[in-house]
Amino acid sequence: MIKVSVMYSNKPGVRFDHDYYRTKHLPLIKSRMGTALKYYTIDKGLADRDGRPPGAYVAMCHLLCDSVDDFQSSFGPHAQEIDGDIRNFTDVTPIIQISEVVVENSAKDETEARHRIPIDHSSSPQRPNQVIR
Amino acid sequence: MIKVSVMYSNKPGVRFDHDYYRTKHLPLIKSRMGTALKYYTIDKGLADRDGRPPGAYVAMCHLLCDSVDDFQSSFGPHAQEIDGDIRNFTDVTPIIQISEVVVENSAKDETEARHRIPIDHSSSPQRPNQVIR
Repeated sequence: MIKVSVMYSNKPGVRFDHDYYRTKHLPLIKSRMGTALKYYTIDKGLADRDGRPPGAYVAMCHLLCDSVDDFQSSFGPHAQEIDGDIRNFTDVTPIIQISEVVVENSAKDETEARHRIPIDHSSSPQRPNQVIR
Repeated sequence: MIKVSVMYSNKPGVRFDHDYYRTKHLPLIKSRMGTALKYYTIDKGLADRDGRPPGAYVAMCHLLCDSVDDFQSSFGPHAQEIDGDIRNFTDVTPIIQISEVVVENSAKDETEARHRIPIDHSSSPQRPNQVIR
């Protein structure tokens, strides 16, 4: 499983409409990606480690897919439309990070069990070899 | 629910022992935080949006708790020990981000149902007013 993290950096005077993000933008992504998107999460920045709000990122979302290929083939054809919606809720250009999900949820037995078997991540087949868009 | 994201930035020649991180460091955090830690996730950086490995962050973990207070009271007393373990797997000082979990898992009905009721995030009671350590 892979996770695409979309991270909106904080900056002075940042504009970010959290309500639009939750009720319009993520549902748009979900509708375009279809079943390739297993699920998503949304975070709203509260503070950095010293308590300064909202922290390094004003908001983040994480898109979970089975593979990088699944993400690219489902998101790619709609990237222009989805990216075009960003101006409707923020003036920040997000950082995109694609990660391998090593532990999805430590409280789920099946996840922990899977990772009790040592695995060699250096030979992961999920390393992408093409650009997203 | 809140999420503490611990993010290790990539840099040239970065040192990061993903196996130690998964098998030693996160279990250490779990054992010290006890039941205040609902669960954690681990991500291993694969690429940025243009396919360049490993992306902005070489690794991340996310610690899920019911509240900022729960995190501070369970992590704080062990912060020195936990931070002291970081040198055992990396030479990167992580960025810490505390976020409100707006959507935990879009595929879970109960999460979506909770957020169908409009809520005013500007008056969130979970805004921290003290430093973590």
